[in-house]
Amino acid sequence: VPGREGNADVWELRDLETPALVVDLDVATGNLRRMQERADRCGLRLWPHTKTHKVPALARLQMELGAAGLTVAKAGEAEVLRDAGLTRLHLAYPPVGEAKARRLADLLNRGCRLRVALDSAAAAACVADAAGRSGVPVEVLVEVDVGLRRVGVAPGEGALALARQVASLPGLVFAGLESYAGHIGHAPDEASRLEILRREGEALQATKDLLERDGLAPAVVSVGGTHHAARMEAIPLATEIRPGTYVYNDRDTLLAGSCDEAELAAFCWVTVVSRHADRAVVDGGSKTLSSDGRPGAGYGLVRGHPSWRVDRLNEEHGVIEWPEGERGPSVGDRLAIVPNHICATVNLHDRAYGLRGGEVAEVLEIAGRGKLR
Amino acid sequence: VPGREGNADVWELRDLETPALVVDLDVATGNLRRMQERADRCGLRLWPHTKTHKVPALARLQMELGAAGLTVAKAGEAEVLRDAGLTRLHLAYPPVGEAKARRLADLLNRGCRLRVALDSAAAAACVADAAGRSGVPVEVLVEVDVGLRRVGVAPGEGALALARQVASLPGLVFAGLESYAGHIGHAPDEASRLEILRREGEALQATKDLLERDGLAPAVVSVGGTHHAARMEAIPLATEIRPGTYVYNDRDTLLAGSCDEAELAAFCWVTVVSRHADRAVVDGGSKTLSSDGRPGAGYGLVRGHPSWRVDRLNEEHGVIEWPEGERGPSVGDRLAIVPNHICATVNLHDRAYGLRGGEVAEVLEIAGRGKLR
Repeated sequence: VPGREGNADVWELRDLETPALVVDLDVATGNLRRMQERADRCGLRLWPHTKTHKVPALARLQMELGAAGLTVAKAGEAEVLRDAGLTRLHLAYPPVGEAKARRLADLLNRGCRLRVALDSAAAAACVADAAGRSGVPVEVLVEVDVGLRRVGVAPGEGALALARQVASLPGLVFAGLESYAGHIGHAPDEASRLEILRREGEALQATKDLLERDGLAPAVVSVGGTHHAARMEAIPLATEIRPGTYVYNDRDTLLAGSCDEAELAAFCWVTVVSRHADRAVVDGGSKTLSSDGRPGAGYGLVRGHPSWRVDRLNEEHGVIEWPEGERGPSVGDRLAIVPNHICATVNLHDRAYGLRGGEVAEVLEIAGRGKLR
Repeated sequence: VPGREGNADVWELRDLETPALVVDLDVATGNLRRMQERADRCGLRLWPHTKTHKVPALARLQMELGAAGLTVAKAGEAEVLRDAGLTRLHLAYPPVGEAKARRLADLLNRGCRLRVALDSAAAAACVADAAGRSGVPVEVLVEVDVGLRRVGVAPGEGALALARQVASLPGLVFAGLESYAGHIGHAPDEASRLEILRREGEALQATKDLLERDGLAPAVVSVGGTHHAARMEAIPLATEIRPGTYVYNDRDTLLAGSCDEAELAAFCWVTVVSRHADRAVVDGGSKTLSSDGRPGAGYGLVRGHPSWRVDRLNEEHGVIEWPEGERGPSVGDRLAIVPNHICATVNLHDRAYGLRGGEVAEVLEIAGRGKLR
């Protein structure tokens, strides 16, 4: 453990070698509990996206608190959860090609109950291949594009055509619809965010109605993510929700009004290594925080110093600036920086250091890091 | 090995499960040879920055070809090289604090000959602490800011003051000056790039003259990087050069005229997983390519399709667009994308797949990945 010497009973943040990813487990656990309570209150099943934390123990806690299952993007992430005994999994990413079919079949053979969201006949064929190889049926959600312009068939006829194909393939069970209005995170104000949710609801409702008239009533209508989860009352059509970021939250979540400051559970702990008249440099750059920026608005929030700006990042350098008249930090100072996008940050770290009661209480191995296949 | 089945003698790129980082070792080896030859011809010692490849076997090849030593940023990277028997190391990053002093002392105790670039009395004290703990002297370069506005003291008097402090500390050997004009990579045209080099040379010359008058003649004048190395004749003052990216090159290097297309040695191998009228989505996003973008100019170069644009990245999604009238790719197609910034890309991958003669010949473990401390 970096910075730890001997076996002191109390190990404090100031003892931790920088840069390091730190998670306040008291705050994170509170975030998990409140989200489950909110989902229960709204009658929505919770399928947390585990890409944010990538830690099997936190995924297990999400299940214990009442989640219906766990969401992942890639087979490699599913394998990490399977190895930890977590088998009710939703793959929110279209698998394409024989190698993916083999990996999904292996998961099915090892006791996983899989659900897959997809948007093409090729991906449906891949999942049917996996079901055929394993003899285990797979539920499929048809992914509908509700404005993000990424994956997803068009609402309405596009979704109906793919749902019919899915329903006709042996081994596949057409289970419903999925959408992800990720552009809500970049909307300029709350009115725009609610408008995106309204349009998403309209598109899903029209698609659902069309499918029902065709005898393909979607049992599941699954929406994402943390921005949605903060506005659950605005999406009455959904049966379930797949937030991920809420476990830790980040600067993007905060700036979009989807969490408050007390719900920020993770930060990068860095040291000022260079100081000049107009700037300081900390030992965490894009390798520590990730280069996911907000155009013109910097790379993170310096806790306790809201006026400071993480102006530029290189791999190992974070350049901090502050308003004229302020004093700024000195070489050797430690700072806690909340990243813009915590999922990308977590993927850069082999482990995180977990605080309980303000002390470093445990090391979280980020077993799902780097599982890009 | 992903996608590999059985023990086929010939294992081709098309067999490789995506997304994957692929390195053409024939091209990379040629890049290493040509750079060493160019440095020899210009009378410059070569201290390659190993952060680009993070692979001990490639660092060893760089030494075998004639490098004077190897550059790293963090102690963790130095430890990886030390464990591979590579001990002549330059730490191009200011160490600050007791934990760093302990790690440097450990490297010195384990047979490393270290040189450190730094820009503050606090970092000099840290290195002196390491030298004191180990009883091994450490060479120090004073880092001069030549316009990047990151680390580095001001040229002239600022450098002289720090050089005097370094020379006065027990265990430290003042060895010379270091600079890194990283802003050359963002200059709009070749005239601007050459002007940056001219100013760097002026600042270093003035500083060197001042130090010589004070009896502190710098034996070493060390400059970076691949953009400099492509223009060695423009920096006559330097005694050594620290390029890193040249082993693989990337889109940024190409666009700055610092390599040609035949010298691009690395790419991300991805599959098209979703196709729509106006876009396709590949299975490599920011977790595969890194989100280091060029403002308004996308996230990579699709080999064989220079008109296509990697328009947006999310963690697992790369959105490809193409000019009206072109056909674009289909679901299942494989694409080779050259990232903007290969160093950031390499840091995301546990391993790279090495081509020789166009076939996948070996797996490179990226032992230096994620060494952010």
